[in-house]
Amino acid sequence: MFPKNAWYVACTPDEISAKPLGRKICNESMVFYRSGPDGRAAALENFCPHRGAPLSLGNVVDGKLVCGYHGLEMGCDGKTIAMPGQRVRGFPAIRAYPTIERYGFVWVWPGDPALADEGRLHRLEWADNPDWAYGGGMFHINCDYRLMIDNLMDLTHETYVHATSIGQPEIDETPTTTKIEGDEVITSRHMENIMAPPFWRMALRGNQLADDVPVDRWQICRFTPPSHVLIEVGVAHAGNGGYDADAKVKASSIVVDFITPETDTSIWYFWGMARNFKPHDEALTASIREGQRKIFSEDLEMLERQQQNLLAHPDRQLLKLNIDSGGVQSRKMIDRILEAERAAAAPA
Amino acid sequence: MFPKNAWYVACTPDEISAKPLGRKICNESMVFYRSGPDGRAAALENFCPHRGAPLSLGNVVDGKLVCGYHGLEMGCDGKTIAMPGQRVRGFPAIRAYPTIERYGFVWVWPGDPALADEGRLHRLEWADNPDWAYGGGMFHINCDYRLMIDNLMDLTHETYVHATSIGQPEIDETPTTTKIEGDEVITSRHMENIMAPPFWRMALRGNQLADDVPVDRWQICRFTPPSHVLIEVGVAHAGNGGYDADAKVKASSIVVDFITPETDTSIWYFWGMARNFKPHDEALTASIREGQRKIFSEDLEMLERQQQNLLAHPDRQLLKLNIDSGGVQSRKMIDRILEAERAAAAPA
Amino acid sequence: MFPKNAWYVACTPDEISAKPLGRKICNESMVFYRSGPDGRAAALENFCPHRGAPLSLGNVVDGKLVCGYHGLEMGCDGKTIAMPGQRVRGFPAIRAYPTIERYGFVWVWPGDPALADEGRLHRLEWADNPDWAYGGGMFHINCDYRLMIDNLMDLTHETYVHATSIGQPEIDETPTTTKIEGDEVITSRHMENIMAPPFWRMALRGNQLADDVPVDRWQICRFTPPSHVLIEVGVAHAGNGGYDADAKVKASSIVVDFITPETDTSIWYFWGMARNFKPHDEALTASIREGQRKIFSEDLEMLERQQQNLLAHPDRQLLKLNIDSGGVQSRKMIDRILEAERAAAAPA
Repeated sequence: MFPKNAWYVACTPDEISAKPLGRKICNESMVFYRSGPDGRAAALENFCPHRGAPLSLGNVVDGKLVCGYHGLEMGCDGKTIAMPGQRVRGFPAIRAYPTIERYGFVWVWPGDPALADEGRLHRLEWADNPDWAYGGGMFHINCDYRLMIDNLMDLTHETYVHATSIGQPEIDETPTTTKIEGDEVITSRHMENIMAPPFWRMALRGNQLADDVPVDRWQICRFTPPSHVLIEVGVAHAGNGGYDADAKVKASSIVVDFITPETDTSIWYFWGMARNFKPHDEALTASIREGQRKIFSEDLEMLERQQQNLLAHPDRQLLKLNIDSGGVQSRKMIDRILEAERAAAAPA
Repeated sequence: MFPKNAWYVACTPDEISAKPLGRKICNESMVFYRSGPDGRAAALENFCPHRGAPLSLGNVVDGKLVCGYHGLEMGCDGKTIAMPGQRVRGFPAIRAYPTIERYGFVWVWPGDPALADEGRLHRLEWADNPDWAYGGGMFHINCDYRLMIDNLMDLTHETYVHATSIGQPEIDETPTTTKIEGDEVITSRHMENIMAPPFWRMALRGNQLADDVPVDRWQICRFTPPSHVLIEVGVAHAGNGGYDADAKVKASSIVVDFITPETDTSIWYFWGMARNFKPHDEALTASIREGQRKIFSEDLEMLERQQQNLLAHPDRQLLKLNIDSGGVQSRKMIDRILEAERAAAAPA
Repeated sequence: MFPKNAWYVACTPDEISAKPLGRKICNESMVFYRSGPDGRAAALENFCPHRGAPLSLGNVVDGKLVCGYHGLEMGCDGKTIAMPGQRVRGFPAIRAYPTIERYGFVWVWPGDPALADEGRLHRLEWADNPDWAYGGGMFHINCDYRLMIDNLMDLTHETYVHATSIGQPEIDETPTTTKIEGDEVITSRHMENIMAPPFWRMALRGNQLADDVPVDRWQICRFTPPSHVLIEVGVAHAGNGGYDADAKVKASSIVVDFITPETDTSIWYFWGMARNFKPHDEALTASIREGQRKIFSEDLEMLERQQQNLLAHPDRQLLKLNIDSGGVQSRKMIDRILEAERAAAAPA
């Protein structure tokens, strides 16, 4: 129940620097490693054609993935290169998955390799920009990836789940607007002349701005398929134009959420924050990441218990309120993609 | 496979004093909390009608249960009271379960609310009597609730499972009688002129009585539906009339067992002891509770492993010996209730 | 999918010295204990005919197995001997499994007792020989027993899984021969004029031989049904005849592997090493056992993950290369036995 012909974040480069990484993505067991003389990220089925051993228990030797059981050498195209004492020409191939390393992530295409199109990779303009800094992490969560999209496209939950950090009653009180632009669902909320909650006071101080004066606050959630949610968030000293205020009176950033399905009911959740102030202050990066880790971990139990409740009541219709429209529109977009994939896969 | 139209112990009041409690009872996921201005115990389906979040992760605010995800306010009748920025009139209701708080427990009726009858609550005469004291605890055990009823209606197991505390060979050697009085199954054993085992020696001493002289000992197990077993137990210095002896020469108490099914193969087991000697001696209450906890925990592995064995051999007929007659009669009574519930539920 | 009419290692004598042992073997839940005045090892179904309690929670009293729940006394033939206050003549019998205690193991026959033939017990000539010493241990592993047979009949994996102890590239480079002699599959490899790997250097030193000179090394794997693999391994100073060299210039031993299925996808793996040098040096026995434990534990993750991969892809055909011929021939022998058991069980 997820698009397969799409680029998903598979891992971060550090996860494959020392040894191969086994990770299931979109129900496919994969092994990620650095291949060839230039160490390009590669992804294969995690299944040795000799005896079914997981290739992720092997090693990379001279740029080739060597099975850790009996030494079969596997190429990044899924074809066996060699094996001690064997002719390997007739060995069955395993699946190879297109990968791209960019923006600090390894991306994988779990679907039809013939359709893999680098041009369809989500563009992150800040990622290669020295004026910006990024810090983030990853959680494994036992929930349908769409529950996380719902969560991120309806930030009223901040008032309840994150009451002590980024939540505040004004979020509930300020209506959102949801619109669709191309393949993007955008849900926006602008709060004017309010006091900033603790997380944003910290950010204002980090930016050498007064934290005890009224601010304008904004949240602009952008969903793009298959399952990316990037959220522009920030505060500006009130009366300076809010979102459009001069950089000198505001603290703003982009909350980054790449939600990669592991199975139908579990995800690899890559979260982070990109900011364009004090980009070289690594202590600030670490402190923001730690704050975000704490806040985002507050969602875990809620999402996993919600998933269990939904599995126990598969027939119940959930409500679709105005606050849910970001998630509802995102799911509609996903459904259209799934329908198109099904139609393309159906026999003529 | 348990009666649903009956009062079961759901929890103790301290379990809902600080925050809502999620607990599955008779296969129904429930949330328990204190509702309204007077803080009455209430029970609802643990499922928010908005997006399926467990309401037990929420909070009680001004006597209303507020969902911890997006702030929906739920009434104790299962109807949504309010939600920030929403009209809630059309929201679907969730189930509300009749509850009673009495005798130091919160009781719940998992079946048809229209049939819930306070008059059918099991009466505990000692519970509101200042001459009596009570101490107890709760275990979660992975077994069918009827295995625990069998266990408590056949105390010959004390000789083997509780050999070092309340067991003694005379239990095996003394036959029991089982009779039915109304909706009660009563299995009695009277042992005369024996030496008391360690637990009862402690009780005699606690009651300022000699512990090294022969005693008469009795065990009167009373099952009442759906799954309560109360056991009168005690010892009296021998030759004074045993069960009917004067209070000055005996130590006696009531073993209290409320067995609440969680699922078909797991229970919440509320155990305790009520006594009518030294009721204000809290140190004695604590010491008896600790002794009982130790003794009752000896049954856990046996019951869980027995359950696993029975699941692995669903076709085996177990023996029904004379010592089993208390459990056999209790199960027959349960079967009649189940049959009546099925008949009432069947279309006319 | 394992032969049932065969002797399997069930446990070591120390496992039943203090109390009964519950262990599932070939999908049968068994209890092992010492029975009768002479303390003979006995095996029964782990199921009390009274109420289904596991007999392994009971005790042995005067050579009889007494159920720990209500005191039923069970005989080693599966018939109830007695129970307090009961006539037991009509009690249903439980299964009794033929057992033999020999060579430092308790062996069990999970199949038809009428076919149990002591003469079919695998003979271990070194086990009762004072010139030999034995040390070993046991692992529980979640894999089909045949994956472990494959593992042991193809030692090329040593180069990859055990690279730092017994592995060396020459294993890969030296072809094996596989032959069948009666009910034995034998795969042999002889490596000449090589340097010994770390484990064998230690063994040479332990045998007061130079460890820095070229050696001849051999591995002779012998599979016999149902699932025993005994491997003659050793090194001799090069040019003295290798396997046939005089004992004074070699270090050799027998790797002992008894693989007992627990279920279709799990095993009790009894491993050890028998040696005929310095048999009375207990420190050496302990040091070899510890070395072997470390080496053999390197296989666990590989085997369990391989099993998971195969379960996820039940339709995939694995390769059968020349290096796999020992395992392939062993499986063919097992298949013939399974076919014969099925034919014998079918109605005429």
